[in-house]
Amino acid sequence: MSTQPLRIGLFGFGVVGQGLYHVLQQTDGVQTEVVRICVKDKEKPRTIAPQRFTFSSDDILLDPNIDVVVELIDDADDAFDIVRRAMRLGKAVVSANKKLIATRLQELLDLQQETGVPFLYEASTGGSIPIIRNLEEYYDTDHLKSIEGIVNGTTNYILSALHASTSPSYQDALSQAQALGFAESDPTSDTEGFDAAYKTTILATHGFGVVAHPSAVVRRGIAAVRGFDIDVALRHWRTIKLVSRIVRDGDTISLLTLPAFVSRNNQLAHVSGANNAIAVTAEYSDVQCLFGKGAGSLPTASAVVSDLSKIQGNYRYAYGRLKRSAGLTLDQRVTVSVYVRASDEQLDALPFTSVQTDHRDVEGRYIIGSIRLDALQQSTAFIDREAFVALYLED
Amino acid sequence: MSTQPLRIGLFGFGVVGQGLYHVLQQTDGVQTEVVRICVKDKEKPRTIAPQRFTFSSDDILLDPNIDVVVELIDDADDAFDIVRRAMRLGKAVVSANKKLIATRLQELLDLQQETGVPFLYEASTGGSIPIIRNLEEYYDTDHLKSIEGIVNGTTNYILSALHASTSPSYQDALSQAQALGFAESDPTSDTEGFDAAYKTTILATHGFGVVAHPSAVVRRGIAAVRGFDIDVALRHWRTIKLVSRIVRDGDTISLLTLPAFVSRNNQLAHVSGANNAIAVTAEYSDVQCLFGKGAGSLPTASAVVSDLSKIQGNYRYAYGRLKRSAGLTLDQRVTVSVYVRASDEQLDALPFTSVQTDHRDVEGRYIIGSIRLDALQQSTAFIDREAFVALYLED
Repeated sequence: MSTQPLRIGLFGFGVVGQGLYHVLQQTDGVQTEVVRICVKDKEKPRTIAPQRFTFSSDDILLDPNIDVVVELIDDADDAFDIVRRAMRLGKAVVSANKKLIATRLQELLDLQQETGVPFLYEASTGGSIPIIRNLEEYYDTDHLKSIEGIVNGTTNYILSALHASTSPSYQDALSQAQALGFAESDPTSDTEGFDAAYKTTILATHGFGVVAHPSAVVRRGIAAVRGFDIDVALRHWRTIKLVSRIVRDGDTISLLTLPAFVSRNNQLAHVSGANNAIAVTAEYSDVQCLFGKGAGSLPTASAVVSDLSKIQGNYRYAYGRLKRSAGLTLDQRVTVSVYVRASDEQLDALPFTSVQTDHRDVEGRYIIGSIRLDALQQSTAFIDREAFVALYLED
Repeated sequence: MSTQPLRIGLFGFGVVGQGLYHVLQQTDGVQTEVVRICVKDKEKPRTIAPQRFTFSSDDILLDPNIDVVVELIDDADDAFDIVRRAMRLGKAVVSANKKLIATRLQELLDLQQETGVPFLYEASTGGSIPIIRNLEEYYDTDHLKSIEGIVNGTTNYILSALHASTSPSYQDALSQAQALGFAESDPTSDTEGFDAAYKTTILATHGFGVVAHPSAVVRRGIAAVRGFDIDVALRHWRTIKLVSRIVRDGDTISLLTLPAFVSRNNQLAHVSGANNAIAVTAEYSDVQCLFGKGAGSLPTASAVVSDLSKIQGNYRYAYGRLKRSAGLTLDQRVTVSVYVRASDEQLDALPFTSVQTDHRDVEGRYIIGSIRLDALQQSTAFIDREAFVALYLED
């Protein structure tokens, strides 16, 4: 392992970038020097000396003294250009950009193959939780059956607020989350489940060796949830969470991100606020759950710093499962238990294979029952923005 | 990384050894060959071909075709002799023997230094939970404040049974655990907290760079717990768990293994049965909790297999904190909140610095208050086998 400080070129100096800069000054776990920081906005006041900043990516990418690029910008397309150029110029890259990684994964895998340069992205999934590293390094010798988790802090914060004794409306809970910085001014990526779907495909790659586009994830967000749904969940000793799930069945795999009624006997039900948790079920180690902060400046930065320390040790992801399990195919024709609140017409049109509860009154109409995931996805209830669709998880 | 199968010499063929043999036949994550198995009992019927077995350790240790020794026997002294000889003969070692590791740690560190041979022991602490690996590899760049966890499955099983609606007596719950194989016929190591104290010192080494003998852990077991204590805990919205805790304060560190009243807002309260969970609190990543099976044949074996896979990749523990944080000293003069049920005389003799509740009636007498840990340890209540002493954890 090199004892020279790692020389860093940083793209982006937002919440995570500033957290990273702070942590790097303090940690004794890795010796680094932030050589240059590339930002877009020339007018914005900065908290550190202006000489560190540049507005030209070339000042980092073409600087032979910079060993590693840390990419922390928002735009996934710009990020891809930076990452590709950096890797082709022989610089290691650390990124926290889940949209970039999930939507361009095959190209990024090819780039790693072509350049032999490490590309690490622990902070992209589960914030501070070391899930990618553990899937790569630790669970690699076990046979994984499923990964199930809460991987979006914004929706978990909103849903936790909706379950609190004060029970605000969805709109109030969202506004509160925005005011506290837990949700963006345009919250769509979080509330509609896109962000969680990105992370689902990243987990599928490292856990099951599958490269799937996020559009292949059966996905629905939380914006349709109402007090009525919360009350039904509570009566069933359950808590509503946005759950991402990958299940292997033989040589097939299914991927979803959906609201879920989670039994209070399940660890995931007790994950509150902006926390995340990911449960890995494997043949030998059984159920393991990793819990931690899913977002935030310092927690996300801590995952980036851990990646930087691994870059210094010449670590790269082995993608062992990708190399071994070429046979797994995506198949969404699995049967799932669900709660659907919708109109009579929509409920009657759903091809349930079995019905546990069929409740219709003036307060609300819903069915709890079993249905094939692909059939659910194609139903009008699934598409209707007013209807609420949730997995119904057993203990 | 070598693609030759790893040739294994196995010591011990009990519950974990048999589980390991099974997993190694199935996993595609690491290629191995179990060359020989050394056992003690010549009469015991075995589930696999007798030619594999030997009763002489030399048949493994002196066999130049064996790359790695897996040590899964009970006796810590015999285990130490095997491990020392194996390492001096240049063989890598994987062990699950927490008593061996905790009580002979300095010698084992010196042996690693002297021989340059890897010695891995993930299965020793938290069963299937990858806590040592994560402390070494992932949290190494963060500043750890505390580690707090449930690291003994036997006591957690018994305490979970005591909290169940049927509320058996301690003796009945222990007998049930023994009948189901969750407790040994002599349960002392588990019920008195020795096993958890071993794991506490292993965590202190990897998390804080401290080498402490298990006798330095302030330790008390669960045998004194009564229905009365459970009722008090429930009224305080708490669950009784056996908790191991390492807290850093400046340049000092305190180590304890004690029963604890755990708030139901704390993840640890929801860890039931033979499960384990370990919460790591760090400056940047904040609170992380790893949850999983703390014991059992296949879960423990899965951790050993993961170590074997790392041996093949020439991995060894870096002990980074041990090298960096030579300044930390053990100091048990920290103030803790506790619940103590004892005689009037014993309660009156305790030097509480503040008292939250002082309850005395015919049903039971207890105080909840703050006290210095070293003063508590020296009190007659702490020594009395009938008195019950527990940490009182805030949310």
